[in-house]
Amino acid sequence: MPSYNYELKGMIVPRISFLDRLCDAVGPISLAYFRSEMAIENKLGEEGFDPVTQADKEIETSLRKMIENEFPKDGILGEEFGEKIGSSGWRWIIDPIDGTRSYITGRPTWGILIALQHEGYSVAGVMDQPFTGERFIAREGIATLQHQGEIKELKVRGCVSLEKAIIHTTAPHNIGHLGRRKKVEEIISSSKMARVTQDGYTWCMLAFGGIDAVVDHWNLMPYDIQPMIPIIEAAGGIITHWDGREVRGGGRILAAGDRRVHQQLLDLLSGEDL
Amino acid sequence: MPSYNYELKGMIVPRISFLDRLCDAVGPISLAYFRSEMAIENKLGEEGFDPVTQADKEIETSLRKMIENEFPKDGILGEEFGEKIGSSGWRWIIDPIDGTRSYITGRPTWGILIALQHEGYSVAGVMDQPFTGERFIAREGIATLQHQGEIKELKVRGCVSLEKAIIHTTAPHNIGHLGRRKKVEEIISSSKMARVTQDGYTWCMLAFGGIDAVVDHWNLMPYDIQPMIPIIEAAGGIITHWDGREVRGGGRILAAGDRRVHQQLLDLLSGEDL
Repeated sequence: MPSYNYELKGMIVPRISFLDRLCDAVGPISLAYFRSEMAIENKLGEEGFDPVTQADKEIETSLRKMIENEFPKDGILGEEFGEKIGSSGWRWIIDPIDGTRSYITGRPTWGILIALQHEGYSVAGVMDQPFTGERFIAREGIATLQHQGEIKELKVRGCVSLEKAIIHTTAPHNIGHLGRRKKVEEIISSSKMARVTQDGYTWCMLAFGGIDAVVDHWNLMPYDIQPMIPIIEAAGGIITHWDGREVRGGGRILAAGDRRVHQQLLDLLSGEDL
Repeated sequence: MPSYNYELKGMIVPRISFLDRLCDAVGPISLAYFRSEMAIENKLGEEGFDPVTQADKEIETSLRKMIENEFPKDGILGEEFGEKIGSSGWRWIIDPIDGTRSYITGRPTWGILIALQHEGYSVAGVMDQPFTGERFIAREGIATLQHQGEIKELKVRGCVSLEKAIIHTTAPHNIGHLGRRKKVEEIISSSKMARVTQDGYTWCMLAFGGIDAVVDHWNLMPYDIQPMIPIIEAAGGIITHWDGREVRGGGRILAAGDRRVHQQLLDLLSGEDL
């Protein structure tokens, strides 16, 4: 379980209800651009294709403005516009559109990710999916899915071993590093079923007990993963670096619903310079 | 363009409105099991994992019953319960849950697929996604997306070449056949962006102009692909076998929104025993 506590309840409550207001405010922006002609820039230029859209920018701008108005002393870290250092001990971490490749191709598995951190720990997190109307949200140690007026608590499921596990991981052909590719191939062939789609939705599927583990080869940024940590932990799951360390920033991340599967994956991933 | 015609309009109209009734009837069954504990059988036994759910069986059973009541002389081909030979010239082709792996893991990209064939040609087709409320449907040469009370016509987009194309294809690590794997790897590295998720949703994304091509390595069955053919063709796309032949049954399929990309893919895939 996370080592933070909720002693500052008087300060966290308004920020937590604010999370819903943030999502409500920017969901319509994401839908206005989804499946429409939109300007797409390529962050990588000639080096490859890393798309960023007008929606990413407008959503992050809106969220930053709302946060600055309401909690001017809070820090903000966003994918598109970087870091604003705060002085309150609180920080908001924003991925305006996680799953940009799904977003630009019209696949409804992208999400708006926001984490709320206190003294460096993510104490609340959300993935909002305005198209399906799903809001995966964790606050005060409880993770829920809000969908069509219903609220369901999220709970991971038990699984005795990797051989019985359904997992999500990175497609091996996308892994340039040979050692890591071999490890991921080994994990794929050791599991009961492995899928290679990897996005914010995947971590939520772990939280609601649809799958048993996620092994992400990418070197994730804090805004990719911090919003997911409270959701997975409050749902009873375990999320660490590939070497078992606690995830305070980003990195190569591993999560499981059952500690036995997590340990088995840690063992598989250890003993090599990864 | 397809070579069938609609001379039998008096016979096709009632069947086409019936398509909506079929979808309306079985959508609730799919939702009742989605993200709940459900019995999953493994069709492959010790050989691998090919899941089939209670929902697959109940949906196909319901659809067959409705069709048999309304059009007793029509043929039916379904994934779970095989073929019923008809005598009317009409045949219904059913994949009760396409994307079973998404379905059993809680990812909302599965669909209920139905094709209506006349004399061996698919003259109407649907992919219904009850969770998102999307119904991709083609009839009488027009493809539309029905969603939240709105109806939008589906249109593919133009694309000058594979180098400018966003495509969906099969993950290379899942392709055992070396020649085909190399071809798919070549297609991936020649495209602007390639994603390796492959399900019914993918073909719909082509129809609404979210992506430019689909190259599916799997040897698809008629119920996987026939419902998609009217949708893609009515949206202005082209869909063939890997060698350019018309798709009358199943097989290895290739589709594109623009003929230039289709031709480039045909050229890439030719000249080898695939």
